[in-house]
Amino acid sequence: MPEDLDNRQPTTDNAAPPGAALRIIPLGGLGEIGMNLMVYEYGEDAIIVDCGMMFPDAATLGVDVIVPDMTYLFDRPERVKAVFLTHGHEDHIGAVPFLVEQLHVPVYGMPLTLGFVRDKLEEFGIEDVDLRPFMPRDVVEAGVFRVEGIQVTHSIVDALGLAIRTPAGTLIHTGDFKIDHTPVDGKRTDLARLAAYGEEGVLALMSDSTNALVPGHGPSEKSVGNSLVNIFANLTGRIIVTTFASHIHRVQQIVDAARKHKRKVFLIGRSLVDNAETAERLGYLRIPREQRPGANAKPSDYANHEVLILTTGTQGEPSSALSRMAIGEHKSVEIQKGDVVILSARTIPGNERAVSHVIDNLYRRGAEVLNWENASVHVSGHACEEELKLMLNVTRPKFFIPIHGTLRHLIHHARLAKSVGVPHGIVITNGQVAEIAGDEIRVLEERVPYGKVFIDSEAEEVPEVVVRDRKHLAEDGFVIVVVAIDSNGLVGREPEIITRGLLHVDESQDILAEVRAQLVQMLHACGPDELRDSDLVQEKMRALLKRYFRKSMGRRPMILPVIWEM
Amino acid sequence: MPEDLDNRQPTTDNAAPPGAALRIIPLGGLGEIGMNLMVYEYGEDAIIVDCGMMFPDAATLGVDVIVPDMTYLFDRPERVKAVFLTHGHEDHIGAVPFLVEQLHVPVYGMPLTLGFVRDKLEEFGIEDVDLRPFMPRDVVEAGVFRVEGIQVTHSIVDALGLAIRTPAGTLIHTGDFKIDHTPVDGKRTDLARLAAYGEEGVLALMSDSTNALVPGHGPSEKSVGNSLVNIFANLTGRIIVTTFASHIHRVQQIVDAARKHKRKVFLIGRSLVDNAETAERLGYLRIPREQRPGANAKPSDYANHEVLILTTGTQGEPSSALSRMAIGEHKSVEIQKGDVVILSARTIPGNERAVSHVIDNLYRRGAEVLNWENASVHVSGHACEEELKLMLNVTRPKFFIPIHGTLRHLIHHARLAKSVGVPHGIVITNGQVAEIAGDEIRVLEERVPYGKVFIDSEAEEVPEVVVRDRKHLAEDGFVIVVVAIDSNGLVGREPEIITRGLLHVDESQDILAEVRAQLVQMLHACGPDELRDSDLVQEKMRALLKRYFRKSMGRRPMILPVIWEM
Repeated sequence: MPEDLDNRQPTTDNAAPPGAALRIIPLGGLGEIGMNLMVYEYGEDAIIVDCGMMFPDAATLGVDVIVPDMTYLFDRPERVKAVFLTHGHEDHIGAVPFLVEQLHVPVYGMPLTLGFVRDKLEEFGIEDVDLRPFMPRDVVEAGVFRVEGIQVTHSIVDALGLAIRTPAGTLIHTGDFKIDHTPVDGKRTDLARLAAYGEEGVLALMSDSTNALVPGHGPSEKSVGNSLVNIFANLTGRIIVTTFASHIHRVQQIVDAARKHKRKVFLIGRSLVDNAETAERLGYLRIPREQRPGANAKPSDYANHEVLILTTGTQGEPSSALSRMAIGEHKSVEIQKGDVVILSARTIPGNERAVSHVIDNLYRRGAEVLNWENASVHVSGHACEEELKLMLNVTRPKFFIPIHGTLRHLIHHARLAKSVGVPHGIVITNGQVAEIAGDEIRVLEERVPYGKVFIDSEAEEVPEVVVRDRKHLAEDGFVIVVVAIDSNGLVGREPEIITRGLLHVDESQDILAEVRAQLVQMLHACGPDELRDSDLVQEKMRALLKRYFRKSMGRRPMILPVIWEM
Repeated sequence: MPEDLDNRQPTTDNAAPPGAALRIIPLGGLGEIGMNLMVYEYGEDAIIVDCGMMFPDAATLGVDVIVPDMTYLFDRPERVKAVFLTHGHEDHIGAVPFLVEQLHVPVYGMPLTLGFVRDKLEEFGIEDVDLRPFMPRDVVEAGVFRVEGIQVTHSIVDALGLAIRTPAGTLIHTGDFKIDHTPVDGKRTDLARLAAYGEEGVLALMSDSTNALVPGHGPSEKSVGNSLVNIFANLTGRIIVTTFASHIHRVQQIVDAARKHKRKVFLIGRSLVDNAETAERLGYLRIPREQRPGANAKPSDYANHEVLILTTGTQGEPSSALSRMAIGEHKSVEIQKGDVVILSARTIPGNERAVSHVIDNLYRRGAEVLNWENASVHVSGHACEEELKLMLNVTRPKFFIPIHGTLRHLIHHARLAKSVGVPHGIVITNGQVAEIAGDEIRVLEERVPYGKVFIDSEAEEVPEVVVRDRKHLAEDGFVIVVVAIDSNGLVGREPEIITRGLLHVDESQDILAEVRAQLVQMLHACGPDELRDSDLVQEKMRALLKRYFRKSMGRRPMILPVIWEM
C-alpha cells in the first residue's frame, strides 16, 4: 500500500465484520501541536491515551486554555475502560479534569504524572478519581486490551511509551520521547523492550512527530547541565534562571550547577514551587539543605554571588514571575545591574513577541540575558529525524501512524518511515478513524465529532459564538440603538445610541447626531402597520446603521437595535 | 567614555551653547523592529531619515498598521528641511503619507523608492508632494546639512546609506544594508566611499542592528538564485513561489530560474503586480516576452511543467493570494496534487502560527511545501556580526549609535562595536535625544514625544482608548442595561439588558432574569431623591452588575447603564 496522503478517501472498501475491527481515533494532537488525545477501540472496548490541552493564540482573548471536544467519548461512556497518561506535560494531562468529570474510569500513570494530575484535580475540586500507579514493564488489562508501560526519555521525569496488545495485534504508542544515551536520571528509552516487540511483530506504531522536521540527532539533556556549570563559573552577579516548571531534570541540573558554585536556590513562582514539592516528595528532585535559603530569607539577604533564583515565565506570560520582575512589579525580586537572566527553554511559536518584550525589559533594567538562541541552555525533549528512524527500525511496524504534530510534521514523518522501509504510513488527523481489519487498514469516510473547546479562567466553557462575537467586537466595536415607539411613531425622547470601540471621542458627537437624525427620519417615514412590526423596524434600523458606518467610515461594527414598544 | 547602557542619565552635564549642538532624535525603530524614523537636528535645522510603519500583532484587532507619533515634527514644521528615504521597504516608507499630509518638504529617494512612494500617495489621494530623485554619490543641501547618497546592498533594489555633513562633523547613516560581494544587480555596498569618509573622520555612525544577534557573514543573494535553479530542475508539477512583493532581486531570480526551465510566469496578487510594473518601468526587472502567458491566459491553459506562479502571502496574511489558494478560495488558482509551493522568505516573528496554518492547508490539498527551514530559498538582506564589524572598521566613527532593533539588538551591536575598538557606543531608544557638542555626547534627560499611532484599514487613526475598549470587549464582552425611570421609580417595562461576548445562549435566560430582578429590587429600594440623581443611579447599577458578574462568573465585562428619564 502506498503512502496515503490524501486520506479523505478510504484505502479499501472491504469493511471488516462489525465488532472485529481495531479503530484508531485521534481526538487531539494530530494536525496541530498540543491537546493530545488518542482513542484505541476494538469492538465495544476503548482505551484513551493522554488527555491534554493547548494554549490559545493572542487573537483568542478571554480564553485560558483549549481542550479537545470529547463528545465521542461522552456519548459512549460504557465503552471506555481506562485512561493511560504517558507523562505529566500539560499537552498530555491538561484536559483530564474535563474528562473525569464525566467519565468514571481508572486513570493510569507514573507517580509524577499522577502527582501533577492530583494537584490539578484538587484545584478543580474533583474528588474520587481512580488514579492508579503504572510503572515501566507493568502490565494492565483494560477490556480486551493488555497494556504494558515502556520507559522512555523525555523532558520530564516519569515518561512512558505503551505497548498495547489487542486481538488484532500489538500497537506501540511512543508518547513524547527522545533517544538520550546519558539522561540525567539514567532512565533511557527502553530500546530492548521495544525491540522485543519488534521481533514479535508490531501491527502499528504511533510515534511522536514534534521534531520530525529537525534533521540529525538531538543533544543529550546532560549537555545543558555541563553548559550551565561553565556559564555559572564566569558569573559574579545574581543568576536568575527560568525553565518549564515541570522539567524536573532541568531543575535538578540547575540546582546542581548552583551547588557547584555555592549558590542558594530561591524558588519563585507558584507552579514551580508546587511541582518541585511534588517531585521532591516522590524522590525525583533533591535540593540539598545547604542550598536552601533560611526560612523567610530574601535574595537581598545574601551576597549577589551566593544567589540563584529559579522562576517561571519562559514564554513571556504577562502574569509570570519573570515578566513581573522585568517590569519592576515583582514583590520580592528587583532586577538590578549585573543580574544575568537565563531562559532555559525554547520559545514556543506564537510567543516570540511576548518573550522579546520581556528580554528587552530585562535589558532596560541592566540585566544580561542568555537564551537558547545565544547560549547552550536548552535542548529539546523530542526525537529528531535520526532518532525517529531508530524507533521505526527497532519496532518494524506493519502500519505506521505519525502522531503529535501539524499535518506537515505528520507527512514528513510518514516519509521518513518510507525512507527506512516502513511503507504503510497512514496520515490521519483529528476526528478521522483508521480501521484495521485483517491485513487491511482503511480510513473511514466519516469523521467522529472533534474540535476545540475553549475554556476561560474560571474553567468554564466559552461557546464558539461568544468567541466569534468577541472577535467581531475587537475588530470594530458595537453600536446599540434604543428607541421607544408606539403605533403612532417615536415616543419619549430621541433614540439613545451607545457605542464603544468604534468612534473617536472628538468625532462621536457629530456622527451620532447625524445617525440619530437619519433614524428619526426613517421612523417618521414608516406607516403605522410597519411600526407595529417590531422585527421589521429592527431590521430597517440595522440596515440603516450598517450602511451608514460602512459608507462613512468603512467599518462593520456589531449593530444591536432595541425597541421599546410602549 | 564607557559603553552607556543605562542611558536614562546624561553622561555629562556640560550642555553645549544653545543652537550649536547636533541632536540625534529617533522617533521610531530604536527599541523595536519596524517603523524607522530618525531626526537629525542642528540648531534650527532638521532632516528626517526614513518614515516607516510596522504591523500590529494579533491582539490589536482592527488595526491595520502602526506609524510613529510625529508630534515632535508637526510642532516645529519650519525646522524640517527635507526627508531622505534610504529604500522602499514599508518599515522605511510606510508612514510617508501621514508625514507629508502635514509637512510640505522635499522627499529624496532613489527611483524605485520614489516609485513605491508615488503609488502609496496615489492610494491616499495625496498630491503635490515634492519628490526628488537622489542617486548614489549625489549631494544635496538641506539647511545646514549636506547629504550624500552612498550605494548599499539590501533585499530591495535602490538602497542607500547616507553621509551627512553637519557643522559638528560627519554622520554616517547606513540604512538597511548587507555586504554582498555578488549582488544580483552588481551594486555593492560602496565600501570605498565609506572608507573615504572614515579616513576623513566620522563623528558618528548609525548602523543597522537587525541581524546584530546573528554570528558570521550572511550568504549572498545569488546563492538563492542558484538554489532555485537546482530545485526547479527536479520538479515536473506546477511551481508556486511566494516572496516579498518589493524584493525585486528575488523576483528577478525566480523569473530567471523559471526561464532556465522554460516555465511561463504568472504574477498573482495586487502588490506584486504593482511593484513588478513599477520595477519594470524603471528597468530593474525584466520578464522576457516568451515567459509571459498570453493575454487572459490561465495557469490551467498550460501543462503543469510549463507553469510558475509568483504570488503574495509570505506571512500567512489571510487576505493574500496564497492563503486563499490554501483554503480553496482563490478565483484563478486551485492547488492540486503535485504542486510545489516555495515560500522564498523568512517568517517574521509573530506570524509563525499563521504561516504554519497556510502550510498545513497546502499539504491538505496535496501540495509539497518548501521554505527557509527546509530548503535554501531565502537569505537575509541585513548585515550579520562580521559585516557589521566591517562597517565599523571602515568608517571608524568617534561615536556609535546602533539603530533598527529591539533594545537587545542595540546593546549587542554596541558591544560588537566595543569589540572592534569603537568604544563610544551610545544606546538610545525612541524619543531619547543624543546631543553632540564639541567632544562630548550626552543623552538628554527628557524624551521628546514619541509612541505608536494606530491606523485602521481606512487610513484613519484609531485612538488608543478605542483599542483599549476593544481589548476589554474581546476579553469579556459587554452588558448594557436600559431602564426608564421617573422620580417615582421604574416606569414602562422591565429593564432591558443586552449582552454579547459574555454568556452562553443556554444560560443567558436565567442569568439575565436574575440580574433583572436584582436591579428592580435595588431601584425600588431607592428614594425619590436618589432616583432624580441619574449619575447616582447609573453608578449603583454599574456596581451591582460588576459585582454580580465578577462573583457569579469571575468575569469583568464592560458595563454600560443607560437611564431614560421620563
